[in-house]
Amino acid sequence: MKLTYSPASPFARKVRIAAIELGLVDRIEFVPTAVVPGQPNDEYSRITPLKKLPVMILDNGEVILDSYVIVEYLDELAGGNRLIPAAGAARWKVKSEHSMLQGMLDSMLLCRYENITRPEALRWKAWSDDHWNRAWLGMARFEQSDVLSRSELDIAQITLVCVLGYADFRFADCGWRKAYPKLDAFHRRMLERPSIKISVPPPA
Amino acid sequence: MKLTYSPASPFARKVRIAAIELGLVDRIEFVPTAVVPGQPNDEYSRITPLKKLPVMILDNGEVILDSYVIVEYLDELAGGNRLIPAAGAARWKVKSEHSMLQGMLDSMLLCRYENITRPEALRWKAWSDDHWNRAWLGMARFEQSDVLSRSELDIAQITLVCVLGYADFRFADCGWRKAYPKLDAFHRRMLERPSIKISVPPPA
Repeated sequence: MKLTYSPASPFARKVRIAAIELGLVDRIEFVPTAVVPGQPNDEYSRITPLKKLPVMILDNGEVILDSYVIVEYLDELAGGNRLIPAAGAARWKVKSEHSMLQGMLDSMLLCRYENITRPEALRWKAWSDDHWNRAWLGMARFEQSDVLSRSELDIAQITLVCVLGYADFRFADCGWRKAYPKLDAFHRRMLERPSIKISVPPPA
Repeated sequence: MKLTYSPASPFARKVRIAAIELGLVDRIEFVPTAVVPGQPNDEYSRITPLKKLPVMILDNGEVILDSYVIVEYLDELAGGNRLIPAAGAARWKVKSEHSMLQGMLDSMLLCRYENITRPEALRWKAWSDDHWNRAWLGMARFEQSDVLSRSELDIAQITLVCVLGYADFRFADCGWRKAYPKLDAFHRRMLERPSIKISVPPPA
């Protein structure tokens, strides 16, 4: 199976970490793919009209999206109940934590597009402030969360690492380590895992 | 349980339709909630830092998000395997179709924010064209899809209705019925269901 991939995409990083942790990474061919909002990529739009990374292309040609569904698919392929609890209150808790982190990433990407991709004269500070605030308040939420102390790796922890890594990559001066010391300790501990370390985004 | 709700939100509509179809709607209190990008809503940000609709607030205070996870939760509450296939290739197909439709809605909302919410002098046509194109190419994809002919209602069909209803609500002149006659026939057939008809967005 193939995964459309960029080392700069936090969503693709999440899938890569999951694949490594589930022992499935050798079965995946990573296909370098570039997408930029405001610029067409007709070839990739034929694979997914959303023009977003990543998607998984199965050997029979079927396309699985988005990054969360790909992780669910890989989790099932690895036997299930590995990175996503299969049942009970923990299932809805981890899934909701993941949705929140995913939304934080969406907002951080919107900030990036607003502050960098969009022509300078057309930037709207109220918009980027609002979206940055969502990510920042989300971090405050996770600073107080038991996500940081759970002993078994799960998709919420992986995605939280992707949020913090993306903050380092694109918002290097935002000061999250100082504001959120528990997130800092969690991030340093997680970096000891090879899957996390190898997937750190390249220097911006 | 409570659901934060606005009749203008296609994501909240999806959950409402699912709740009706699953026979759970009487157990849900719908809480009118207004969110506007670029404008703070501190009270709602305390419930979800993403400041997005809808979230489900359980009687024990736990918060479930996003709209898809809420539908999964309701589906399980109703016995499971109702709107989302529980296993097999159909599961990944329906989930991936849903992800695509969800991304189309995200892009349509970004167009709306660009064309209406954002100050006129700061609008970037390449951005809104790109996002509209994602939704439009997505509709072309579904025009050729067996989603239209499946006999058992599922979450992809519900979300496709929400996409088309949102197109009518916010992009009334886009001409999707003429471009996509099979979607038009599907939409008319779906409007015969009380859950779909009652949840049509109010006149814009």
